[in-house]
Amino acid sequence: MTTPKKICILGSGNWGSAIAKIVGSNVTKFDTFDNEVRMYVYEEMVDGRKLTEIINTTHENVKYLPGKKLPSNVVAIPDVVDAALDADVIIFVIPHQFIRKICQPLIGKLKPTTVGISLIKGFDLKEGGGIVLISHLIKEVVNIPVSVLMGANLAGEVAEEKFCETTIGCRDVEVGKMYRNLIQTDYFRVVVVDDVEAVEVCGALKNIVASGAGFVDGLGYGDNTKAAVIRLGLMEMIKFCEVFYPGSKLGTFFESCGVADLITTCYGGRNRRVAEAFVTSGKSIEELEKEMLNGQKLQGPYTAAEVNHMLKAKGMESRFPLFTAIHQICLGVIPPSGMIDCIRNHPEHMCSFDKQHTSVSGSHE
Amino acid sequence: MTTPKKICILGSGNWGSAIAKIVGSNVTKFDTFDNEVRMYVYEEMVDGRKLTEIINTTHENVKYLPGKKLPSNVVAIPDVVDAALDADVIIFVIPHQFIRKICQPLIGKLKPTTVGISLIKGFDLKEGGGIVLISHLIKEVVNIPVSVLMGANLAGEVAEEKFCETTIGCRDVEVGKMYRNLIQTDYFRVVVVDDVEAVEVCGALKNIVASGAGFVDGLGYGDNTKAAVIRLGLMEMIKFCEVFYPGSKLGTFFESCGVADLITTCYGGRNRRVAEAFVTSGKSIEELEKEMLNGQKLQGPYTAAEVNHMLKAKGMESRFPLFTAIHQICLGVIPPSGMIDCIRNHPEHMCSFDKQHTSVSGSHE
Repeated sequence: MTTPKKICILGSGNWGSAIAKIVGSNVTKFDTFDNEVRMYVYEEMVDGRKLTEIINTTHENVKYLPGKKLPSNVVAIPDVVDAALDADVIIFVIPHQFIRKICQPLIGKLKPTTVGISLIKGFDLKEGGGIVLISHLIKEVVNIPVSVLMGANLAGEVAEEKFCETTIGCRDVEVGKMYRNLIQTDYFRVVVVDDVEAVEVCGALKNIVASGAGFVDGLGYGDNTKAAVIRLGLMEMIKFCEVFYPGSKLGTFFESCGVADLITTCYGGRNRRVAEAFVTSGKSIEELEKEMLNGQKLQGPYTAAEVNHMLKAKGMESRFPLFTAIHQICLGVIPPSGMIDCIRNHPEHMCSFDKQHTSVSGSHE
Repeated sequence: MTTPKKICILGSGNWGSAIAKIVGSNVTKFDTFDNEVRMYVYEEMVDGRKLTEIINTTHENVKYLPGKKLPSNVVAIPDVVDAALDADVIIFVIPHQFIRKICQPLIGKLKPTTVGISLIKGFDLKEGGGIVLISHLIKEVVNIPVSVLMGANLAGEVAEEKFCETTIGCRDVEVGKMYRNLIQTDYFRVVVVDDVEAVEVCGALKNIVASGAGFVDGLGYGDNTKAAVIRLGLMEMIKFCEVFYPGSKLGTFFESCGVADLITTCYGGRNRRVAEAFVTSGKSIEELEKEMLNGQKLQGPYTAAEVNHMLKAKGMESRFPLFTAIHQICLGVIPPSGMIDCIRNHPEHMCSFDKQHTSVSGSHE
């Protein structure tokens, strides 16, 4: 009998707290997990009390997930080394700009068998331009294998226990099963695929597409046009993975991390909303970030710029006319109404007779 | 040099008129098409004048597409044999319940080289239960090869020349190119695939999924749940094609006929709207059809019933828990809130470690 695995959650925001609620409950259902879940909480004062103290006495993250009880076996810890040192499994759910700083004290201290899973959407910047996947960044810093979890998972709805699905990208079958036991509930359904990079890339690129969907909304173009932009966006996401992460699988884009997360982001979500306001107000993205997002950076335009850098370096802008147009619109190089002209002769329309589609049964056997 | 092809449009409703506007303009751009487009119009009186006369003098279908001019080379003809007899290409865009009756006079009279394309969504009933594809029904009646055109194509928006995409399913490459010349414009972009049945099946099954999306809206379940229902619906559409139309291709579901049309139907569309009202009002589908649709039959529940007949016959209801639950909810056998319980243990969640996804590049080469 192996020693029960110790779980650490790095992060305690809205999404981290919703996951802590699930994980805290699940560890008690399996002998394979230690019953205590250690949650690293960035210490701050709330109404004159430390947030860790509040969580450990009231079992509620009053600041980031008010109104929801966390299981009492979730222990808030203000020191990252205390929280993570003995962990067998680390769940990363911190804002991506703090990863290097927060993980720094852990370098060289983790057990050689420790594994990690990243719930962080977006990506980091490469020196000299281009993107670095968050899972790769974490691996680079703390040197453990890192899986990912992505999907149509608005944290508030997960905390409300409303039914949804998620996708875990994990290369090791046994580790994947362990994650499923740790995270799946009857309202939060997990599908594990081995296509780690594609799962993670979906979570970043969808924000570019959502900007395009917002432009369509702002321009009053209607349902047909919006559906076309979402579909062409999906095709460019697939093509992007094909070019930059070869070996990615078509079926992954049918998982929750792909089409499902894309749909919710293109209908709800702040990237769509700000892009719509960009068209209707005539203000710049920077102005709107100040007004609508309290100065926070909007993922879509930022991701579009980094992706454009990668496409330009490969001379492939014309293969990705939607991503390219969205970037140029954000920069003010072309007007929002120019987006449609850029996609009229999309490569997806040109190659229709050359396309060979893979058979459905081939994807499931 | 071959004789220019004569084009006939059978049907002159909203969608038929929008297509006539496109086709009438396109035939003048290619030597390969005869310049006259004959449009069969079911004769009726509008303000004391025959509709065909109005169309042929004012070039406007004042009843079904008011405010939009048709090209003057589109000629309205009240007799179906006059309209179709010499045609090389027939575009079928009539309500599906009238196909047998309208096509009856054409039996044995068409040229042996005539080809057809169906723009009709939905399907017909097989004697003894189950579905018959409209393209198969047309082929059975008039004995010509029938291609299909389906996509996220609300007729009003197409007539407004708002950008969109469509999918043509056609087995013959040369015929497919001819259809593309006939139908593509700079705002109506065509992708041709050879996967005819899957293209057509998407157009029917999406209405079942839209009913499920409407139930979620009515129950107030939120964006995550709706995305999950749409995704699982898409997976059941794929599985349905795999079982009943083997050889269908995964890539077809990424075309406009697949994911794009599904999205618009699950966010707009009357199947979603009536299903939402079904939950919030507590009334039966029949009552709502009377109140909201002037007595017209709603496609979703009707399709769900026929599909259920086919699944039951194969003992496969449990493989399609979403389709099955939607059917049972429409019948009143289970409450709308029961839908989520039916999909908690969806086969898509169960087989995650056995799934082998096809590589992205394999679908494009």
